[in-house]
Order: sequence, then structure tokens, then C-alpha cells
Amino acid sequence: MKRRSLLSFAAAAPLLAGGCAATSASSATSKAPALLGTGDLGVVIERAQGALTLVNTSRREAMGRVEGLGDLSHASVVFSRDERFAYVFGRDGALTRVDILEQRITHRVMQAGNSIGGAISADGSLVVAQNYTPGGIKVFDAATLELLSDIPALMPNGERSRVVGLADLPQRRFIYSLFDAEAICIADCSNPRKPQVTTLAGIGRQPYDALLSPNGRHYIAGLFGEDGLAMVDLWDATPRARRILAGYGRGEKPLPVYKMPHLRGWAMAGGRAYLPAIGRHEVLVVDTATWAEVGRIPVAGQPVFVMARPDGRQVWVNFSVPDYNRVQVIDTPSGQVIDTIAPGKAVLHMEFTPRGESVWISCRDDDRVQVYDTHTRQLQASLAVDAPSGIFFTARAQRMGF
Amino acid sequence: MKRRSLLSFAAAAPLLAGGCAATSASSATSKAPALLGTGDLGVVIERAQGALTLVNTSRREAMGRVEGLGDLSHASVVFSRDERFAYVFGRDGALTRVDILEQRITHRVMQAGNSIGGAISADGSLVVAQNYTPGGIKVFDAATLELLSDIPALMPNGERSRVVGLADLPQRRFIYSLFDAEAICIADCSNPRKPQVTTLAGIGRQPYDALLSPNGRHYIAGLFGEDGLAMVDLWDATPRARRILAGYGRGEKPLPVYKMPHLRGWAMAGGRAYLPAIGRHEVLVVDTATWAEVGRIPVAGQPVFVMARPDGRQVWVNFSVPDYNRVQVIDTPSGQVIDTIAPGKAVLHMEFTPRGESVWISCRDDDRVQVYDTHTRQLQASLAVDAPSGIFFTARAQRMGF
Repeated sequence: MKRRSLLSFAAAAPLLAGGCAATSASSATSKAPALLGTGDLGVVIERAQGALTLVNTSRREAMGRVEGLGDLSHASVVFSRDERFAYVFGRDGALTRVDILEQRITHRVMQAGNSIGGAISADGSLVVAQNYTPGGIKVFDAATLELLSDIPALMPNGERSRVVGLADLPQRRFIYSLFDAEAICIADCSNPRKPQVTTLAGIGRQPYDALLSPNGRHYIAGLFGEDGLAMVDLWDATPRARRILAGYGRGEKPLPVYKMPHLRGWAMAGGRAYLPAIGRHEVLVVDTATWAEVGRIPVAGQPVFVMARPDGRQVWVNFSVPDYNRVQVIDTPSGQVIDTIAPGKAVLHMEFTPRGESVWISCRDDDRVQVYDTHTRQLQASLAVDAPSGIFFTARAQRMGF
Repeated sequence: MKRRSLLSFAAAAPLLAGGCAATSASSATSKAPALLGTGDLGVVIERAQGALTLVNTSRREAMGRVEGLGDLSHASVVFSRDERFAYVFGRDGALTRVDILEQRITHRVMQAGNSIGGAISADGSLVVAQNYTPGGIKVFDAATLELLSDIPALMPNGERSRVVGLADLPQRRFIYSLFDAEAICIADCSNPRKPQVTTLAGIGRQPYDALLSPNGRHYIAGLFGEDGLAMVDLWDATPRARRILAGYGRGEKPLPVYKMPHLRGWAMAGGRAYLPAIGRHEVLVVDTATWAEVGRIPVAGQPVFVMARPDGRQVWVNFSVPDYNRVQVIDTPSGQVIDTIAPGKAVLHMEFTPRGESVWISCRDDDRVQVYDTHTRQLQASLAVDAPSGIFFTARAQRMGF
């Protein structure tokens, strides 16, 4: 019933979005903020407190905290083009704009009843949220959070589909998948009040998440309802979906799946993609020219995030329960696991510094974020953060597909 | 004689470096600087004025100016990890640290008599300059410009070689080439006051410039004294130099060479490298797995910079005199030139915004920087800048090899 009451609240929210007043964070102070570069900053989600810990990756320490963000149990973040503002998409349908320099909330809207993420256009002008209920995407002015468009994700029967796998494309376009409608949509928001939507139908049953390759060329949706994945080559003159990796999926798996892996964790490096096998203690290696599987690497549990260090030399892997106290490091040239570390209990997320010298790892049940040197695997710092989950550094502003 | 007097001055400069007082830029003002994110900022070299124009790539406009940087006729820039400070390496051997937020010079040292660039470590702690006279590299504390090490580039006869092609490597190491000594060196500065230098000898005659691949794996030095290039795979357990592209170089070229192309402009995308042919109106296409030439693309002049848009879908090319009023755009999937634009007279440099939606082009003789939409090739903005040359955006802080 809680879901439903959220939904009722959310139904009215879009009308309020345009005139939403700024909400002060309880942690905001009156002293003038220090002059700071923002290239080495980031936020850590405190999932239980509904707060952000603000961090500095040069000093490897917390620099502040912002509260009042609501339900952050499955939150994600994108950053403004200047790396000053964090847009936080809460599970409860809230979209919150946080000023990292002033350490306060500047704008906040309840824009849906149940939401799982968002994206920002390359020019920084548009922020888009993807929603489960009511199903669709909403386009906001990034400076004011004014609602510019509400694009329902419609099924042939007129009902709304849940939306997953949203990513930004060039020229103020956004791509996303319809869980209930076997479709991938591309919304051209170059005129954000009159978006044009192109739908690729029949892409496969129940796309549950998707990713965009780092160069923005390939959009790949995982299918919950059947084996394999749907892939779109966005550089084609007329993009269409085709099926790849027919053996990838839930259908033929004998193992129980403790947690569906995040497709966004996929590592792509050196012409290979490294992806979590579903239910198996393996990382799959795929040739990104042919999209055929070329190898499997045994690992310590069911992989959740499989992430490439920015140089592609290493791939770091974390695991679902019961193996989520470990992280493994794969050396990509040899395809071997070269190290296993134990950062703490309940490792939920990892984030590399932009040039890859360090990795930050959230250990929820230890209330710790652990920072490691990726070359030596020595612990460089340990930050006290309440139940940390997602870690997001401002450098994401400068990459597509986040 | 001017060169020599600079050299004499430079010889004493390192002693002063540690205690060098900040120099105020003439353009500095007393009002408090605005709170700004720094992810969308950059600097444009005013080569004739010895000044920087500070720019904002979201607004596509100039935001300030800093003077007093000396001879910037062949200047380059790296950025601090927080994207607040620009380190400017002047041709005259000066190293200047500019605070972009306060729009002023914070530190400045004359560190050599003739210098052509520098690098910064991934952790942001060390700035290194590469010098012609006296030949070698110098390691500075990035926060203070205190000199930490002076590493002469010695030839077997004890004389000093000019240094070119400096790039940062992980773990506070730096790689560079000795023009006069047929060598590539790697300096491990993890203890910056006691650097350890490894020398790869006999790499080929007169390396004149070099580049590091975007993933930091391959270091490639162009050879002035013979055909071909020297390549080091830095992921090898024991890196060594080998010769690649034997047909690449000056030896067999019948055409006059108006300007040696910048190797740093090499575009690498999708398993291919796109590089300027020397003296020929061609861009060479090379397979980065085999390092064999796989194609040539005819272009409008002798290419100088051949630069990939961040997504690798396009490669932009500018040219030496007499064709330096044009810029061509190559579509990489088809290998075809898809557009030719005429931004202005004497196009010297190009810089893409981090996600590639725009490109900024310096037109020296028009005193203009022209900003184009890379998708439509429409002019988005035109900035008045005195004799602009190099354009550097703060996003470089988050990439290796710059």
C-alpha cells in the first residue's frame, strides 16, 4: 500500500515541478563556501539516511553532508556540465538538485511514484528521469527543474510501461527501454517541449536494464523474459535492434540468482566486453566486433558490478550475497584474477577516480568507504559513511551514457 | 644570442624555484571571485600577447583574461586534479601556475632556457617540465612549484640531450624521449627527490615528438632521423622499444614539409589510429592491434592535427600552410571526408568539449576562436581572442597522456 500512496502523491507532482521552491538542506551553513575546483569531487549515497556525503578524491576525505533527499534505497546521480550540481534520482520518484559547493539542496521535485534513474544531455540543458509509475520519462530544465515534457511509455493497449535503461545520446536525444512493451525508444528532445519519439518494437521480452557503450555507439538491453540481449548500433543510418549472445540470460540457468547484475557495470576495454554471468560464478568475455563470447573467467561469487579501470588494464568485480565481502581484480591482458581483497561487509558499489589510480568501494554494513590504490591494492583511506551505497564522482559529467 | 642569455638566466632559476613568490597578473581584480564549477572551463593561449583567455564551454564565451605569461609562441598546458589551476609551459622555459577561479597567476618560475611542454601525475602532486636547454626534465611540487628533482638527459658522452614527448604514466612515473641520444626514458618519481630513471637505448635516430595512447598502454615516438616510429608497450613486464610503420617518416618523401605534424594529435578510435602523413595530403589509417597501415584517406593539405571526437565517430583534420584556412571532417566508419569547413585564416589548434558535442578552433590571423556543433557543423559561437593558438579544456585533468 505504501507504493500506491506514493503513486497518488506523484500523480500531482508534475504540476508542481515548474514552480518548485528551493528546499534548504538541514546541513547547510551560513558561512561563505570556500572557492574550490570541482573536478575532484563526488557524492556517496547514504541509503538509510537519505543523505549524501560529499567527498574530495584528492584529499581522500569527506568534505560535507547534505540531508533531506528522501528514499535513496536505489538512487543514482548525474552531474551538471560544470561539475558543480548533482542531480539525485531517488527510488521514491524524487529528483533533487544539490549544489556541491554550497552543500545544499537548490531544487527538489516529486516527479513520479517510483523511479530508478536519469540522464543529462551533453550540453547540460536537460535532465531526464525514467519512471516505473507512472511509466515514462520526464524532461526537466536542468537549471530550474521545470518540467518541459512528460513522455508516457505507451503499450499497444494504451497502458503505460515501466521504463528502464535510460541513457543520453548526442543532440539532446535519450534512449530507453520499455519493460512491459518489448520496445526500445529514442526521444529527440532538441525541442524539449515537443519531443519526437522513435520506437523500435519487438526487441525481446522484458528488457530489465541497459547500457550504452563508452563511445555511445552500442545500446544493449538485457532481457528478463528470455535468453540473450537486444543490441542497437546507433551509428547505423536507420538503427534497429538485433539479438546478441543468445546464451546470456535466465532461461537455462540452474543456479538461483541472488541479485540481478547491473548491466551498467559492464566493462568495455580493448575490443572486449566483460560482463557478469547471471547466476554463475563467472565473468563472460565478449568480442565487441562480433558480439560473440570468447571466454569465461571463474570468479568468487555471482558478479554484480564488473567494472573496467579507466585504462582497461584491470577489471574489478564485486558479488551478490553471500560473497559480497570480497572484490576481485582481473588482469585483462592475461584474463586472470590477480588479486582478491576483503574491503568489508556488503560491498555495494565501486567507483574509479578519473585516471584510475584509486578505487572507492562502499561497504554498507561496516559504514565505511574504503579507498584502494589500484596498482598496489593497498588501502589508501577509510571514510566513515552511514550505510554507503552508490559512489559517483563529478568526472561522470564528462562522459556519455551515465 | 637571446637564446643564450635565457639559458644563463635559467641556470640559476631552479635555486629560486622553492621560494618563488607569487606574481600578480595585471588583470587580477580585487572583487571576490564567483563560486563556480570548474568542469566546463578552459584556457586559450594568446601567443602574441603572452596571455590566456579563460573560457566557459557551457556559455561558449570568455570569462576573463590573465596576462604576464611571457613567450607563449609554443605553449602547452596541463590542469590540476581539481580542474582549478592551469600549469602553463612557455617556450621561454617559464612554468606558470594560474588560478582560473581567481583569474591570476599564483606561482611562476623560469625553470629552463627553452622548454616545450610538461605533464602532471595522476594524483596531482607532481608537475614535470621537459626542456631543450639545458636538456632534461624537472620535477616540481604541484602546489608550490618547489623544484624537487632536476634530471639531466645525458648522452653517452656526458652532454645533455634535448627532451621531447613527455607524458605521465601511472604511479608517479613519466616517460620521455631524448632527441639527441636515440633513447626513451622512464623516470619513476614515486620518491620525487630521488627519481629512478630507466633508459631504453637504441630506439632510433632523433625522436622529435611522441604520444601516449588514450589508455596509456602504447608510447610512440616519431623519428626525425629515419623512417618509421619507435613504439613501447608499457603493459609488458619489461617494456622495450620496437619499430613500427617503417614507411612513416621523412626519408622517402618527395614533398616539402611545411610543418612537422604533432604526434599528440593522433586520433585513436575503434581499434584504428588516424595519423598525419608527413608531407603528403593524406591521413594514414593504422590497425592498433598489428600497427600495420590499412588505408589512406586523401585530404585537402598536409595534415597537422588529426584529432578524434571523443566518441571516435569523427576525426577532424587541420593543415599546414598554405591550406591552413580549412578543416576537414572524416567519418570513421566509412573512412570518407564528409565535410570541409573554412573557420578562418591560420587554423592552429582544435579542442573538443569533453562529450564531443562542440569543437573549438583557433584562427590566429582572424583573432577568433570559432565554435562548431560537431554534428551539424553549424557555427555556435565566435569569440574575439588575440592571435589564439592552443586551446585547452579542464577535462584534460581527467585523462592520462596529456
